[in-house]
Amino acid sequence: MWKDFVMKWKPKVDEKLVEFFKGKEDLASRFKDINERALSFAEDFTVSGGKRVRPILFLAGYISQGKEPDDSILKVAAAIELIHSFLLIHDDIMDKDEVRRGKPTVWKRFENAGFDRHTAYSMAITTGDLVYTYALQLVLESGLPWEMREVVLRNMLRTVEDTGYGQNLDVYFPTKPVEEVSPEDVMLVYKQKTGYYTIVFPLTTGAEIAGADKGTLEALSDYGLKVGIAFQVHDDILGVFGDPEKTGKPVGNDIREGKRTILVLEAYRRGSPEDKEIIRRYLGTDDEEGIKKVMEVIERTGALDYAKELERNLVEEGKKALEKAKISEEIRTFLKEFADYLITREK
Amino acid sequence: MWKDFVMKWKPKVDEKLVEFFKGKEDLASRFKDINERALSFAEDFTVSGGKRVRPILFLAGYISQGKEPDDSILKVAAAIELIHSFLLIHDDIMDKDEVRRGKPTVWKRFENAGFDRHTAYSMAITTGDLVYTYALQLVLESGLPWEMREVVLRNMLRTVEDTGYGQNLDVYFPTKPVEEVSPEDVMLVYKQKTGYYTIVFPLTTGAEIAGADKGTLEALSDYGLKVGIAFQVHDDILGVFGDPEKTGKPVGNDIREGKRTILVLEAYRRGSPEDKEIIRRYLGTDDEEGIKKVMEVIERTGALDYAKELERNLVEEGKKALEKAKISEEIRTFLKEFADYLITREK
Repeated sequence: MWKDFVMKWKPKVDEKLVEFFKGKEDLASRFKDINERALSFAEDFTVSGGKRVRPILFLAGYISQGKEPDDSILKVAAAIELIHSFLLIHDDIMDKDEVRRGKPTVWKRFENAGFDRHTAYSMAITTGDLVYTYALQLVLESGLPWEMREVVLRNMLRTVEDTGYGQNLDVYFPTKPVEEVSPEDVMLVYKQKTGYYTIVFPLTTGAEIAGADKGTLEALSDYGLKVGIAFQVHDDILGVFGDPEKTGKPVGNDIREGKRTILVLEAYRRGSPEDKEIIRRYLGTDDEEGIKKVMEVIERTGALDYAKELERNLVEEGKKALEKAKISEEIRTFLKEFADYLITREK
Repeated sequence: MWKDFVMKWKPKVDEKLVEFFKGKEDLASRFKDINERALSFAEDFTVSGGKRVRPILFLAGYISQGKEPDDSILKVAAAIELIHSFLLIHDDIMDKDEVRRGKPTVWKRFENAGFDRHTAYSMAITTGDLVYTYALQLVLESGLPWEMREVVLRNMLRTVEDTGYGQNLDVYFPTKPVEEVSPEDVMLVYKQKTGYYTIVFPLTTGAEIAGADKGTLEALSDYGLKVGIAFQVHDDILGVFGDPEKTGKPVGNDIREGKRTILVLEAYRRGSPEDKEIIRRYLGTDDEEGIKKVMEVIERTGALDYAKELERNLVEEGKKALEKAKISEEIRTFLKEFADYLITREK
């Protein structure tokens, strides 16, 4: 079962994370209470909650080539989670999100500590920069042979770069009228921000340093891109039609937040002039009746069915891509189950 | 003359910067106009204006060991300027600064392009993250032997880390009442944010990869820390008593902005209860009469003379530290002249 794999490796990654933060305490404390606080916010935000999807995919890639992760590899896995943490810390400022994984976001923790909003944002920007720096330090100090560190660093930097471009698009699109953003536009963001960053990067990096051949890396990349986009599409479905008791978010949440998701853009493309008007009018509003109307348009135009079919097809294509990969049977099964999970999960 | 050294190397560093940004255009353009814009803002902000102090100190350190910088070394010098650019981009958000080097800051450019304030901040956060990433990529792809890249990366990451702690203090102190911040507290920020970051890091890194011995690195570090703090103290003097026609800032500017500088904190420590009351009352206000009163307190208590003596002593100590360094006479002269310049400049 893929969950057993997760339960086996997650604690080992977490141990490295805790160990790393512990090693920073002495230095941070020399810079007064504010930096001790920044460090403890960063640690708690990183370690508590979260599924460690990216470190575990990295380990899966490594193990797929018949290798057993040692201390150095676990450090790199932890570094990959630190990259995720850094991106979330900055992302939460941009989205003004106050809660993540049921706990306050980093900027909100500073605000809760008594700082005004802008000061809280400022400290969270710096805390994010620190966590990014920690991630790179952890790779550099991992003890891996240099050729491997070079691969990890190059892929990591390229991923942060691509995710940055995706992030700019993500901030940019909601500033444009809905009719000026196409489903293809958001697919570009899904490809970068979820496909490459969440799946392709960790999985292929793990496989590459374990010595996977070019064909295998291509197959894993193909798998990751498809499954990653499916993952995001499923998120979009849950963000509108998910069970609030399971997702922790109210019905129609993404409509209320005005997100330009594939569901909304596909419904807009397919909709009648009246449907289009409903979307333009109620997307990003608090009007509960209007939000329900937008949800009806998404169903009536077939955009919801389209999204469900899309995610199923992507997962099937992704699983098929694995056929060309030379990987252990254990990991092949894991990756297939993982793909199925991503589009059947209810939260 | 130290200025000839600057005039010789600055154009070569700038050439590498322009070349690097050019190489990114194709990728950024695949992510729509917003990322082309982010890239061009980052490039213009980095390349136009600025003295390239840090890359030039890095080159001076390298040359001090009798070596001639090649293409790889110039790329690392450019990367050091990118680190500076990244830190400024984020710093300008935190300080809400709209202008730097006579041109709009990066977040302000996004605002000028029509985005609301928070969206502009968000895009500038991401642009800063991208520029940090570019800096590290440039080192990784510099073509330097791995042992040297490792030294550069380790020192660079440690410097960003220390500067981050300093930055948090810099944001933190102004939120505290003036009586709760000591001159020693701000000295800690000066040490990290200016001493290590601006001088020690580039100078010793250049010398280290050129093969300087331990004693020389210690001497250069000693020089850099002292001269760096003197540089910051001089900035503080100019920030209050500088000629507005030369500094481009009104008289008493740092008082108006409420900065906790060594001048103010030393005056507060030395002042009578009435002096202390004046500082508490007018620091960070627009009251022109009050600002003049604070300036008088700084002079009357001897804090200004103290600062002037401090910067002179630090520069003398710094120059003396150079005696123990095994460096070329050309660079020894350069570093001495550079130190003198830092505390005699009028802007």
